[in-house]
Amino acid sequence: MLNVKRLSVEEADWLIAGAVFASREQDIPMCIAVTDESGHLIAFRRMDGAKITSISIAVDKAFTAAAARKPTHIYNQLCVSGQPTFGIHITNNGHFSIIGGGLPVTVDDQIVAGIGISSGTAEEDRKVAEAALAYFYLQSEYTP
Amino acid sequence: MLNVKRLSVEEADWLIAGAVFASREQDIPMCIAVTDESGHLIAFRRMDGAKITSISIAVDKAFTAAAARKPTHIYNQLCVSGQPTFGIHITNNGHFSIIGGGLPVTVDDQIVAGIGISSGTAEEDRKVAEAALAYFYLQSEYTP
Amino acid sequence: MLNVKRLSVEEADWLIAGAVFASREQDIPMCIAVTDESGHLIAFRRMDGAKITSISIAVDKAFTAAAARKPTHIYNQLCVSGQPTFGIHITNNGHFSIIGGGLPVTVDDQIVAGIGISSGTAEEDRKVAEAALAYFYLQSEYTP
Amino acid sequence: MLNVKRLSVEEADWLIAGAVFASREQDIPMCIAVTDESGHLIAFRRMDGAKITSISIAVDKAFTAAAARKPTHIYNQLCVSGQPTFGIHITNNGHFSIIGGGLPVTVDDQIVAGIGISSGTAEEDRKVAEAALAYFYLQSEYTP
Repeated sequence: MLNVKRLSVEEADWLIAGAVFASREQDIPMCIAVTDESGHLIAFRRMDGAKITSISIAVDKAFTAAAARKPTHIYNQLCVSGQPTFGIHITNNGHFSIIGGGLPVTVDDQIVAGIGISSGTAEEDRKVAEAALAYFYLQSEYTP
Repeated sequence: MLNVKRLSVEEADWLIAGAVFASREQDIPMCIAVTDESGHLIAFRRMDGAKITSISIAVDKAFTAAAARKPTHIYNQLCVSGQPTFGIHITNNGHFSIIGGGLPVTVDDQIVAGIGISSGTAEEDRKVAEAALAYFYLQSEYTP
Repeated sequence: MLNVKRLSVEEADWLIAGAVFASREQDIPMCIAVTDESGHLIAFRRMDGAKITSISIAVDKAFTAAAARKPTHIYNQLCVSGQPTFGIHITNNGHFSIIGGGLPVTVDDQIVAGIGISSGTAEEDRKVAEAALAYFYLQSEYTP
Repeated sequence: MLNVKRLSVEEADWLIAGAVFASREQDIPMCIAVTDESGHLIAFRRMDGAKITSISIAVDKAFTAAAARKPTHIYNQLCVSGQPTFGIHITNNGHFSIIGGGLPVTVDDQIVAGIGISSGTAEEDRKVAEAALAYFYLQSEYTP
């Protein structure tokens, strides 16, 4: 039997809160999604003013980061026309996100969740995701 | 020009909180979704132990209640084989929910949001949705 | 942090083997699918002669049993036109199976996997799924 | 009347076993899929630790290799922006894989199956697929 660690919904609140703080600092209202380690949604928050198209993009980023176990911006760099990983962006019924802003959430080197941010540029989304993770480790007593 | 009233994300928190309280009272962890008046997701929370299949069902219930402007259990009663509304459950790419647990959220007779609950029976889900609405009107100063 | 039990792939082999034995006894070649507790596929086997349409049906049954936490034949009885659960069969992008032959796999009262069988009648599929579970508990030292 | 050669499920086991051995050698747990000559799934195995997003990618690679009758890495080289084959990756409802790791399985110059590997890089996946084929020819008395 495998033994799997999974983020609880109360712990997901730290990620959401951290993302909200960072979004306000950047003055960009964001869609924020948190999935469990298997890629299934735990929590979602669309800040007032965040984009409607970003709802599913944020969810897909969180899914991809958790289930494919890499930040989505890494796949963006790999999935370039002419390169071996090109084409991965249309797999998983179009839910495999290769746009920066999705990060795996690790605790003691195990992926326990994924976070996805969307509404800004890929770079802005990624910064908010990173700030959310920093807040998460600060508030919890977990280490990556 | 139309002027549309739409629930803010902070106001959606009252619905989520009310649903969480009612779920705990019933001892059934729930998936809870809140959409705006256009049916687009504002907030989502999967309580620890809620069903994975209920993630999208809760979102679909909230979408349907807001966008089709009726409680989903009303459509359940209308969408019976041989009746004129039969078939509506497979419209909107399968996102039209006819299972009880989705309610429109009205303020001064205008629909401003939808709430969808899933993981229990249709009856249990509906009770939690109704409790969430009651809590919302209590905490806010809004009237239906 | 939640702590989740999940079937390993070697343990899934017991379910597959048990299903193969029971299928041969009934002389009906079957599609056999095993998912983890989150509904993601671990192992699949299409016996020679099993139906092509049953590939995805078996996978959907295993997914539903694990993720919605009930045998699929229970949902079949609930999802009747005019009843409150009618409509659940088209949720989850059409992957919510309400045809008998899907069973949750429990260990110490926790769902650790799902099994789905397809190619016979719903009754035949269910018998094979039950036989697979019996074989699993016999070969492993696990109790439901 | 056409007479079609098709891999049996017992013969598919050689491909799966060969892929498992090679994955362990590379220390990368893989998703392994085998389809028949028509592209329909025969057998699937997700080794403990393989990626969830790779479940459907492995199946798509095996499907493409069998049904389009070429290794998927060949399509990767052809499907480059500006080239005549560009766009093929979004055909077949997104199941046409152009990522290396899918190989047709030939016996006496006829395609009898497809194998798809996913969880590593395209190069790692391809090596495991090639090792699986080598093991298959060694164990069976078939020649390509």
